[in-house]
Amino acid sequence: MYRTHNCGELRIDAVNKEILLSGWVQKIRNLGGMTFIDLRDRYGITQLVIDQNSKPELSEQARKLGREFVIKVKGTVAERSNKNKELTTGEIEIVVSNIEILSKSEVPPFTIEDETDGGEELRMKYRYLDLRRKPLQKGLMLRHLMAQLVRRFLSDKGFLEIETPFLIRSTPEGARDFVVPSRMSAGKFYALPQSPQVFKQLLMISGYDKYFQLTKCFRDEDFRSDRQPEFTQIDCEMSFIEREDILTTFEGLAKYLFKEVKNIDFKDNFPRITYDNAMEKYGNDRPDIRFEMLINNVTEIVKGKDFKVFDDAEYIGALCVKGQSEFTRKQLDELTEFVKRPQIGAMGMVYAKYNTDGTIKSSVDKFYNQDELMKWAQATGAQAGDLILVLSGAKSKTLAALSELRHEMGNRLGLRDNKVFAPLWVIDFPLFEKDEETGQLHAMHHPFTAPKIGEEHLLDTKPENIKANAYDLVINGSEIGGGSIRIHDTEMQQKMFKALGFTDEEAENQFGFLMSAFKYGAPPHGGIAFGFDRWTAMFNGSDSIRDVMAFPKNNAGKDIMIDAPAEIDNKQLKDLFLSVNK
Amino acid sequence: MYRTHNCGELRIDAVNKEILLSGWVQKIRNLGGMTFIDLRDRYGITQLVIDQNSKPELSEQARKLGREFVIKVKGTVAERSNKNKELTTGEIEIVVSNIEILSKSEVPPFTIEDETDGGEELRMKYRYLDLRRKPLQKGLMLRHLMAQLVRRFLSDKGFLEIETPFLIRSTPEGARDFVVPSRMSAGKFYALPQSPQVFKQLLMISGYDKYFQLTKCFRDEDFRSDRQPEFTQIDCEMSFIEREDILTTFEGLAKYLFKEVKNIDFKDNFPRITYDNAMEKYGNDRPDIRFEMLINNVTEIVKGKDFKVFDDAEYIGALCVKGQSEFTRKQLDELTEFVKRPQIGAMGMVYAKYNTDGTIKSSVDKFYNQDELMKWAQATGAQAGDLILVLSGAKSKTLAALSELRHEMGNRLGLRDNKVFAPLWVIDFPLFEKDEETGQLHAMHHPFTAPKIGEEHLLDTKPENIKANAYDLVINGSEIGGGSIRIHDTEMQQKMFKALGFTDEEAENQFGFLMSAFKYGAPPHGGIAFGFDRWTAMFNGSDSIRDVMAFPKNNAGKDIMIDAPAEIDNKQLKDLFLSVNK
Repeated sequence: MYRTHNCGELRIDAVNKEILLSGWVQKIRNLGGMTFIDLRDRYGITQLVIDQNSKPELSEQARKLGREFVIKVKGTVAERSNKNKELTTGEIEIVVSNIEILSKSEVPPFTIEDETDGGEELRMKYRYLDLRRKPLQKGLMLRHLMAQLVRRFLSDKGFLEIETPFLIRSTPEGARDFVVPSRMSAGKFYALPQSPQVFKQLLMISGYDKYFQLTKCFRDEDFRSDRQPEFTQIDCEMSFIEREDILTTFEGLAKYLFKEVKNIDFKDNFPRITYDNAMEKYGNDRPDIRFEMLINNVTEIVKGKDFKVFDDAEYIGALCVKGQSEFTRKQLDELTEFVKRPQIGAMGMVYAKYNTDGTIKSSVDKFYNQDELMKWAQATGAQAGDLILVLSGAKSKTLAALSELRHEMGNRLGLRDNKVFAPLWVIDFPLFEKDEETGQLHAMHHPFTAPKIGEEHLLDTKPENIKANAYDLVINGSEIGGGSIRIHDTEMQQKMFKALGFTDEEAENQFGFLMSAFKYGAPPHGGIAFGFDRWTAMFNGSDSIRDVMAFPKNNAGKDIMIDAPAEIDNKQLKDLFLSVNK
Repeated sequence: MYRTHNCGELRIDAVNKEILLSGWVQKIRNLGGMTFIDLRDRYGITQLVIDQNSKPELSEQARKLGREFVIKVKGTVAERSNKNKELTTGEIEIVVSNIEILSKSEVPPFTIEDETDGGEELRMKYRYLDLRRKPLQKGLMLRHLMAQLVRRFLSDKGFLEIETPFLIRSTPEGARDFVVPSRMSAGKFYALPQSPQVFKQLLMISGYDKYFQLTKCFRDEDFRSDRQPEFTQIDCEMSFIEREDILTTFEGLAKYLFKEVKNIDFKDNFPRITYDNAMEKYGNDRPDIRFEMLINNVTEIVKGKDFKVFDDAEYIGALCVKGQSEFTRKQLDELTEFVKRPQIGAMGMVYAKYNTDGTIKSSVDKFYNQDELMKWAQATGAQAGDLILVLSGAKSKTLAALSELRHEMGNRLGLRDNKVFAPLWVIDFPLFEKDEETGQLHAMHHPFTAPKIGEEHLLDTKPENIKANAYDLVINGSEIGGGSIRIHDTEMQQKMFKALGFTDEEAENQFGFLMSAFKYGAPPHGGIAFGFDRWTAMFNGSDSIRDVMAFPKNNAGKDIMIDAPAEIDNKQLKDLFLSVNK
């Protein structure tokens, strides 16, 4: 037997018990004739103590142990004289009578502490050691908990978890598919799913009216920060429902997780905002509503005063920053530099300080007198003591820049606390996006998304004006989930394909089997998918989804611990009818 | 709103309620002036009724509906005059006031009934229609239930479900790996995991002492009947444990599933049998112990009577079939043909009938007199009324043939009822298998399997004699799970590699990162993995695992519904630095 208890378990009531513990040596301290060992496992740390006077041989053995050795100890629980309130086991220690080394350890390449000295690259290479650190253990335990809670909630609501296949078919527009060469069919490939979308719709057609799955999805993107080629989705679909049913059900799931995981009660319904409104007031479609500071369209108010920058601008928008009229020149210069960074791309920033004495001081005083500036204040709701920040230019670009500026101000003012959560639904997305060059419409979500109810007739006449029956769950400025009501009617689906510029043949080629399935009685249906990694990371207070994944890839899509991807045998290539052209 | 109830929900207490139902038209019958519609969803069937006299228009609309149309009906619940005890809703029917067609259906290519007229190939092509049939729905619902139960049981025991990666590294002996070409690293490939074995061992080294995962595994095998290229495993690993802890924990899981799913109580411990004993008494290492009929080694007893077939045989084994001395000549001839089939390969079969009158009649009476035959009876435990069947030849081949014969007799005598479950543990597997040609040893499980406790010293001297600390869970002749205690000691691991004929370089090449991990404090650990598809199929009473998978591949590894695998674009190939040589 290796242990009677784990290292986080023993309390004062166990004093005088004889116990066995196994774990890793976290730390050894020699104080006078006493040796103290912190023994660690995932449950906690227990202090071991050996007295040189009474047990000279054991003491010598203990002093030879190294960090991360795995040992089994026998001993008796004793009350500690100097109790440690940081540890759950801090009231006791183990008076050791025997030590057995189960496994030695070389000196680890970085310290196994909450704050480690190991760099990113080194910790990725020795991920199995990094995973011993408490912050990562906390992340994986939270992930486990959330996965079980999601399953419990949905199962209790009558949802069935159904596994969909991983070896599927690549679609012609599947540039982002990972493919898998077939050994049995020369020159043919499977593809790994980017999502189970088509299969979950088939399951609806099969009559499984409440489906979910926690499943891996794969996307061969050019990697950017905090994207992973494989990621986990909570994928859900329902039949015989309307949008309201979906929002109610999954708002219920979100509230359940908030309650169970974060002990936060959301009594009221989550706010809802239309896509158009989100773009106008927040400059993006995933608003962070932990703080106000909305965008105000001041285009009409500020034009016509011979300030060429504004007069030439398509759009001028302003933020009112409450109580910050005392922002220094240096701070304002920093903000100007911030918005001029290439990834934001504003040409400059105009400010107006509404001083507490009632005067307004702006960076464009040459063009605007106090009365005119007072109109800015009215338009933005600014009062004495507030700061107004103004950006101008092409509308969509300026709104995006204002969104970034808003987030930056939120960060500077501590308004984006990651212990505060502000969920909302964004609804009424456009059904199509227009390719600016070709004028061709593309589906904003995917071609099976249904138009908003009442707007279906526009498919024939003004498709670009149609809203989709689609919705996103946004928390703290992150899109946590998104979905839509799907088209279930062959005729409307055909109109949709037509609007997207598909020939019948292209539609058949890309979506033939789903189109066939629609012919045999498809129920009204819709669904949603949540980014499980992102949601868990958010609840964990992590900036990166890597903190809640056991073995993530790096930003180049590589696993540097196992050295993947790697070359394969020529024999293997030959079996797959492939050759490599470098 | 599409429905107030589902089609399996309404009972007699709902009479006079106004309700909405949505579902598929299962059947339409016109009887006199009445139209009866069976409306179906996954919850059941509800009868709709429309009276031509009172509602002529509605009646006409109803008569135009076709099978598998999706409709929404409004109506009032009424008590049925002729109640249908086959249906949970059989006491009521719906007097319809309105019908809305949600989706039309072409005539399906086969009937959506428990017993369908569709052939295998057709049903695979229209899998989404086949999935509407109750037997498949039952299978998927059972699968959902079992998955949730497994997770609940293990979570409650402190196990953490941790996701391991799908894009990993191919190993040099990975002929069975599916590979995934990388677009970011020219000429390099990921591999899909055959199992999470290495990652779960790394998690043990990371201190996650109780791990599990329900996860897809991939194996690029030449497909045989009822194998799938992707399958699901319940994968588990524990640290600081001995074999007994694993067997107790997972016997607990098995008992929990038996109780929750099948309502069967296993009060006693599952029997355990050694590999050697299983081979001797059942002729294989996954004995079906639903019935006795053990194999008896009669080699010494029957030799030396000038019957050349026996005298030349390495091994002679006999089954005693209780109470079957009246087997006819025809039946015995059939059995002889059965054992002579190439896949079994016996040269012939000898029988001896121990008649109820006390005489024994055998097919080799020329060589054996009554006294001698009586010794056969003693050796096999046969009594008056029993039948003795004897096969001879090379030992391992003959045992395998006796196993097949035993199963055949079990089938013929109805001793293999799929509603009866007989689980057991097979233990003490050999650690190595010897390549008959080269004499080289191979790991019977994998090279990380620990030797049986007390036999470690044989690694240096007689490795071929060592038993492994490995175990299989067998139910009704199927291997449902298997695992082992792993080596956690670098030195023993090196000995193991040496016994397997690995050079240091080969070991490093194939298992380098795991070997590195062992150097930083590996706890004693072990685990087990269960075939989730197989287990579910068994509990479902299905012969094929396809009956409990939503979208299986056919025996050639193809998904004929979506037509995968398929050719991909030349552009895609080029992006992956590949060309195809057919």
